[in-house]
Amino acid sequence: MALKIGRGAEAPPFIVMDVITAANARQAALPPGAPHVIRMEVGQPGTGAPAGAVAAAAAALQAGAPMGYTEALGLRSLRTRIARHYADWYGADIAPGRIAVTVGASGAFPLAFLAAFDPGDRVAMAAPFYPPYVNILAALGITPVMLEAGPETRFQPTVEMLERLDPRPDGLIVASPCNPAGTMLHPDELAAIAAWCHEAGVRLISDEIYHGLTYDNPIATAAALSPSAVVVNSFSKYFSMTGWRIGWMVLPDDLVRPVECLAQNMFISAPHIAQVAAEAAMDCTAELQANVARYRRSRDLLLRSLPAAGFPKLSPAEGAFYLYADVTDRTNDSRAFCARMLAEAGVAASPGVDFDRARGNRFIRFSYCGPEADMAEAASRLAGWR
Amino acid sequence: MALKIGRGAEAPPFIVMDVITAANARQAALPPGAPHVIRMEVGQPGTGAPAGAVAAAAAALQAGAPMGYTEALGLRSLRTRIARHYADWYGADIAPGRIAVTVGASGAFPLAFLAAFDPGDRVAMAAPFYPPYVNILAALGITPVMLEAGPETRFQPTVEMLERLDPRPDGLIVASPCNPAGTMLHPDELAAIAAWCHEAGVRLISDEIYHGLTYDNPIATAAALSPSAVVVNSFSKYFSMTGWRIGWMVLPDDLVRPVECLAQNMFISAPHIAQVAAEAAMDCTAELQANVARYRRSRDLLLRSLPAAGFPKLSPAEGAFYLYADVTDRTNDSRAFCARMLAEAGVAASPGVDFDRARGNRFIRFSYCGPEADMAEAASRLAGWR
Repeated sequence: MALKIGRGAEAPPFIVMDVITAANARQAALPPGAPHVIRMEVGQPGTGAPAGAVAAAAAALQAGAPMGYTEALGLRSLRTRIARHYADWYGADIAPGRIAVTVGASGAFPLAFLAAFDPGDRVAMAAPFYPPYVNILAALGITPVMLEAGPETRFQPTVEMLERLDPRPDGLIVASPCNPAGTMLHPDELAAIAAWCHEAGVRLISDEIYHGLTYDNPIATAAALSPSAVVVNSFSKYFSMTGWRIGWMVLPDDLVRPVECLAQNMFISAPHIAQVAAEAAMDCTAELQANVARYRRSRDLLLRSLPAAGFPKLSPAEGAFYLYADVTDRTNDSRAFCARMLAEAGVAASPGVDFDRARGNRFIRFSYCGPEADMAEAASRLAGWR
Repeated sequence: MALKIGRGAEAPPFIVMDVITAANARQAALPPGAPHVIRMEVGQPGTGAPAGAVAAAAAALQAGAPMGYTEALGLRSLRTRIARHYADWYGADIAPGRIAVTVGASGAFPLAFLAAFDPGDRVAMAAPFYPPYVNILAALGITPVMLEAGPETRFQPTVEMLERLDPRPDGLIVASPCNPAGTMLHPDELAAIAAWCHEAGVRLISDEIYHGLTYDNPIATAAALSPSAVVVNSFSKYFSMTGWRIGWMVLPDDLVRPVECLAQNMFISAPHIAQVAAEAAMDCTAELQANVARYRRSRDLLLRSLPAAGFPKLSPAEGAFYLYADVTDRTNDSRAFCARMLAEAGVAASPGVDFDRARGNRFIRFSYCGPEADMAEAASRLAGWR
């Protein structure tokens, strides 16, 4: 008898991951000495973990640390260190007991969604968006509600958009700086949204994974602006520790114990060695700021050179390491466009369809977190490609 | 306005985790020189990862491996090595493409449940059971169906129990060796259940996390017995790598791509360094078999000594590192009984209520994966305690 498959199995792929596979395959098929594929499709820093983090992990291994389960919410020392980070970066007073260490930001979302929402609930977000928001919500039976956002609001949601929603959503996800557009909610904008959500009984989930990677404007954390918001963050981006799978949440008081129970059941704990490395990474400021300076140089180079290479309509690029390019004048099929760019110019980028199902065929996302020399080479290759 | 909390937040705690916290607190409060708390509550080997695994991880760090995301289903080399493990251990031919590397067995369950079931579906299992099965299912809106099992079936389900279910369940979870009872489904029993499930269109999820930790009887894998079963396994128990958070699934062909898409969205990938260490662990046979020999000695010691210490009704202890004791003659409140045993005898064990909500007040679970000397000391302390 044929067995059923759950509706959760209908989660679409996170297309970036498929583009990564295609770029890997192309690179592997190149003849020796051929120019390498330039990887602008990945949201993954070209650097590894900072030296201090690697050294802490290596030292723990050498000392024979048993690396067993930690408590579900994480090592006390790491939770305390993360709380101090909120004082250092934002002047915010966050109790360590409100910090939950997670298996990356990815591991935080199911915990946050299950703790805060029920199947059938409606959770709003701006489009374009980070695809797993929608795919995880859908797998859990929660309905995503799109707020179409464009360059006029820097691809971010506004209180006005929220007020127009009828019925009110049960939750709102914001991301600043955001993926794919690299734009921010400025502190007054985030404060207004946080206040509206709290007043309206709408659970705010603030994805702050790209904090630390900002170039011109000040940034605020929802943890300091709302007692009911859930903040999601990670060591993957600023701290350059993607494959270590380590992140955190700042939880409102009412969700601490629910998330602890869910985490005990669904994760037991985050990886122990990654927790040790992450705590050390928080003191590697000089190395991490050098990464930020490199992203800034790559951003500036691309903002100067991509318009002349046929990509004049770029998002403001206030943070993260993404440029979201409106390619309306060149294609109405961004997936085919990216495939052709990979095949002909050897530059991998992500089609916008991953981030915006309605309009994404007219956008592509460039990531500039790869090696600096590659960014200059990409601009040069694209200038000669049509 | 007070914000809602999702039904998922009603997931009960995994009580073992709370017992661990209580035992930690008691140990910390002991005066210097006092006899230490003996930890028989944890399902965590007293050993760390095997030396070869630690060395591989350390070498990768020393070589400056960037430790980025891997493909969502894991490193190709690890998936190939796991496939070979099925040839080596079971004589089974499993394609590497059917292996999904996961964030422990914990990370496998939500993927398996979301891929195979829908909210409202009914998934059967024997009681007593591993608590997160029920808690994760409940968080996902899936209904657990209990098959009350006792010593007469070695706490395992049977085809007869399944046939009595009306309506038929959508899925069945089996665990052999099982937690908490340490009993097995013998190969003919697992084969009969797997055949019944496949024929009836019931998705079988076979939790094989304690494979390798068996003492007398041969063992079979559902991967070799059913084309539709999902096998869940982990590096946490036999391979002694709990806090590394690394496990795997063997997937039926129809669930490979759905699980890959779900994993891309919910996990991105399992921890990279743990994948490197795990691959090396699979070659550390001598060290791992020495662990098994130690468990066997601890088991034998406890089977000899616990009956005289007031625990005569013990489960058969065919595998894993648990003894499930019927304490009907001593208490009808196993949680209070365990608390008193911790306070008075300095021995931590888990109350059965975690594993069987209906009958668990009459059972407790001893884990014997801790240091061998502690097991003898525990027997001695318990002999003098009533």
